[in-house]
Amino acid sequence: MSVTAAKGFTASGVAAGIKESGGADLALVVNEGPRLAAAGVFTSNRVKAAPVLWSQQVLKGGQVSAVVLNSGGANACTGPQGFQDTHATAEKVAESLNAAGRDATGGHSAGEVAVCSTGLIGLRLPMDKLLPGVDKAVAQLSEHGGEKAAMAIMTTDTVHKTAVAGGEGWTVGGMAKGAGMLAPGLATMLVVLTTDADLDSADLDKALRAATRTTFDRVDSDGCMSTNDTVLLLASGASGVTPGHEEFAEAVRAVCADLARQLIGDAEGASKDIRIEVVNAATEDEAVEVGRTIARNNLLKCAVHGEDPNWGRVLSAIGTTSATFDPDRLNVAINGVWVCRNGSVGEDRDLVDMRYREVRITADLAAGDASAEIWTNDLTADYVHENSAYSS
Amino acid sequence: MSVTAAKGFTASGVAAGIKESGGADLALVVNEGPRLAAAGVFTSNRVKAAPVLWSQQVLKGGQVSAVVLNSGGANACTGPQGFQDTHATAEKVAESLNAAGRDATGGHSAGEVAVCSTGLIGLRLPMDKLLPGVDKAVAQLSEHGGEKAAMAIMTTDTVHKTAVAGGEGWTVGGMAKGAGMLAPGLATMLVVLTTDADLDSADLDKALRAATRTTFDRVDSDGCMSTNDTVLLLASGASGVTPGHEEFAEAVRAVCADLARQLIGDAEGASKDIRIEVVNAATEDEAVEVGRTIARNNLLKCAVHGEDPNWGRVLSAIGTTSATFDPDRLNVAINGVWVCRNGSVGEDRDLVDMRYREVRITADLAAGDASAEIWTNDLTADYVHENSAYSS
Repeated sequence: MSVTAAKGFTASGVAAGIKESGGADLALVVNEGPRLAAAGVFTSNRVKAAPVLWSQQVLKGGQVSAVVLNSGGANACTGPQGFQDTHATAEKVAESLNAAGRDATGGHSAGEVAVCSTGLIGLRLPMDKLLPGVDKAVAQLSEHGGEKAAMAIMTTDTVHKTAVAGGEGWTVGGMAKGAGMLAPGLATMLVVLTTDADLDSADLDKALRAATRTTFDRVDSDGCMSTNDTVLLLASGASGVTPGHEEFAEAVRAVCADLARQLIGDAEGASKDIRIEVVNAATEDEAVEVGRTIARNNLLKCAVHGEDPNWGRVLSAIGTTSATFDPDRLNVAINGVWVCRNGSVGEDRDLVDMRYREVRITADLAAGDASAEIWTNDLTADYVHENSAYSS
Repeated sequence: MSVTAAKGFTASGVAAGIKESGGADLALVVNEGPRLAAAGVFTSNRVKAAPVLWSQQVLKGGQVSAVVLNSGGANACTGPQGFQDTHATAEKVAESLNAAGRDATGGHSAGEVAVCSTGLIGLRLPMDKLLPGVDKAVAQLSEHGGEKAAMAIMTTDTVHKTAVAGGEGWTVGGMAKGAGMLAPGLATMLVVLTTDADLDSADLDKALRAATRTTFDRVDSDGCMSTNDTVLLLASGASGVTPGHEEFAEAVRAVCADLARQLIGDAEGASKDIRIEVVNAATEDEAVEVGRTIARNNLLKCAVHGEDPNWGRVLSAIGTTSATFDPDRLNVAINGVWVCRNGSVGEDRDLVDMRYREVRITADLAAGDASAEIWTNDLTADYVHENSAYSS
C-alpha cells in the first residue's frame, strides 16, 4: 500500500519537532529509479504557499527524485523568507540523500526535489528542527516506509489514507492527507502517488489531470480552497512495463477516487457523507456547477445533519446557478425517494430514511443527458468547534 | 415608525392560524392614497416562489394599493396550485377591502395587490385559515398598525425590525423580516417601505434600486439565496411634497441601511457581526466580489466565532477570486490591527481585541481606489442547531 507499493520507491516518516505535540511531522518519498518521471497538479488558489510555487517550478522539468512533506506549518503567506525556507529544505534533502549514498539515479539536486507543507498559514517553519529532521528521514528510508510517511503528513486527519491499484506487473500506490479537495478544499490536501510503470512525464501528466478532474476536483467538503493543495505522481519505471494509456489512466483514477472518498469520510466534524448526483444536465460543466452549488449550501448541509429531507433547500440552491433548467421541470430525490417532482411536492418526505452515514441527493435538471457527481459533508457543531477553538 | 410612519398608510397584523404556534402570521399594508405609486425588487433566484412571480406581475403596472404578507409558509415550489393560492389571496384582499368601504382610491383590484410569503418551502398554504385571516386583518387596519404588521411577518427573527427617515414634510418608513439579504440571503427577507412623498413609480424604482444595491445586496449572512426575497416601496403622495431625487434617494438608502443592519444583528445563531471592508480595489465590482467571497468563507466565520484573528483564511479566500491583486501586496487588518502586510506576517496578532460583537475585517487589495463594504456573521453551533433541528 501507500507510496512504497510500487517498486523503485523508498519512504519514511519521522518526528522532527515541528508539531508541538511531538508527533510525526516529516515525510520523505524517494524515487530510486531507474526513471524519475513526474507530473503534478496544484491548487488554483492565487494565493499560493511557498512550497507550491517551488514545486510548480520543479515539475516544469518533468523530473522529481524526491518529495519532502511536512505537517505542522503551511509555509503560506510567509513572504520571501518562506520561499527561502522551502528552497533550503529542498537543498538539504538533496545533500542528505547524496551524503547517504542514495545517488543511484545520478545524484540528487534541489531542482528535482518537490516540497509540500500543511498546517497554519502565516507562520515561518522552525527550520532549526526541520533540517535535522531531514537527515533523520533519510536515515530511515525503507521500501516499507509508505505507511509511516502517510502518518507523518496527518494534521486534523483521524486516520492515515492510502490506496493501491495496478495491472500485469505494475502498480500505482498513493497516500493522502486532508479532508477536502484540490480546488477548492477544506484544510490542505496533499497527495503523493507513485508507480513503477515505465512512462514519461507527458504520459503521467495526462493520466493525472484526467483523474483529478473527476475525483479530487469533485470533492467539496466546505467550499474553502487551500493555498497548499498538491497532487504529485512519480514514476520509477522499475517494473520495466509500459501499460497502455487507458489501462494506466484507469488505475490512477481508481487510486485517486479511493483516496478522495477517504478524504470525505474523514472530513472535519462531519457526521454524513453526501453524494450529490446531478443528472440530465445540458452539459457536464453545468452538472458540476449545480452539484458544487448544492454542496456549498450551508442550510442544506445543516438539514442533512438533522436528517431532514429538506428538498426546498436543494431547489433554492439550484436556482442560484446559471445552468439550463426550467424550474417547473426539476426533480429531486433523497436516498432514492423523489420528494420533488416537476418543481413541486413529490413523494412523501416521510419515506426518506436518512439514518445512515451516506446520503444520496439526486438532482434531475431535465435539460439534457450529461451528469456529474460531487461529494460533500454535512455541517455540524463539531465542524464549528474544530475550526473556531484553535488556529489551523 | 414602521410602514405607518408615512401619511396615507394603514396596516395591521393578526393571527390567522397559519403558524402552528398560534402567533401573528398575517400582515396587511394598505395605501390609502391619493397616489398608488410603487416599485419592487425581487430575489434573483431562478426558482421563485408563487408570490414573487405574482408580485413581479403586479409591479409591472407601477401601482400597488395593498400588500398582504404571511409568515408560516413560503408558498414556494408548490406548482400551479400554489400560484392559484397567491392569486386567490390577492382577490380576497381586494374584495375584503372594497366590502369594508376602504375604496377611497377608486376601489381595489387583485392586480394591484402584492403578496409576500415566508416559511417552509414545498408546502401549500392553509387557505382555509389564510382567507378568513384577511377579513380579520382588514377589520383591524389602523394608522398605528405598523408595529403589529412588523411583528406578524417574523419567522426565526427574535425582534421585529422597523426604521424611519425623511425630510421637510415627508417621511419614509419601513419594516423588515429575515436575517439575510436580497440575493443571496439567509431565510427569506421581506421588506415593505412606505412614503408619503409625492413621486411616481419611476422615481421610486430608481431610488429603491440604488438603495438596495448598497444595503440589502451587501448583507450576506450565510451565502444562501431565498426563493421569496422581496423589497417593496409604496408612495401615497399624502404629504403633497415632492422631494428632490437625491434627498429622497438618500432617505430610502438610510432606511434600507438601518433595516439591513438590523437583519445582520439578528441573524440565526450569530454571535458576531462582521463588517468586511474591501479597499483599494481596481473596481467596485471587484471589491464586492472579494468582500462576498470573504463573507462566505466558513473557515473564517468559524475563526471569528472563536475570536481567532486568522488572517490566513482571509488571504486564502481572496485568492479564489478573479479580482485584480498581487498576492505579495495584500494587506489585512482585523479590528484595526494590520496583521498581514504585503501578503505576509504583519503586526502581532495578539494585539487584536475580538471580544465585542462587531468585528471589522479590512482587506487592502492595493490595486486601485474602489471600495465596498459587506456585512456577514460568524458561523456558530447555534446556527447549525437552528437549521438542522427542524424544517424551515
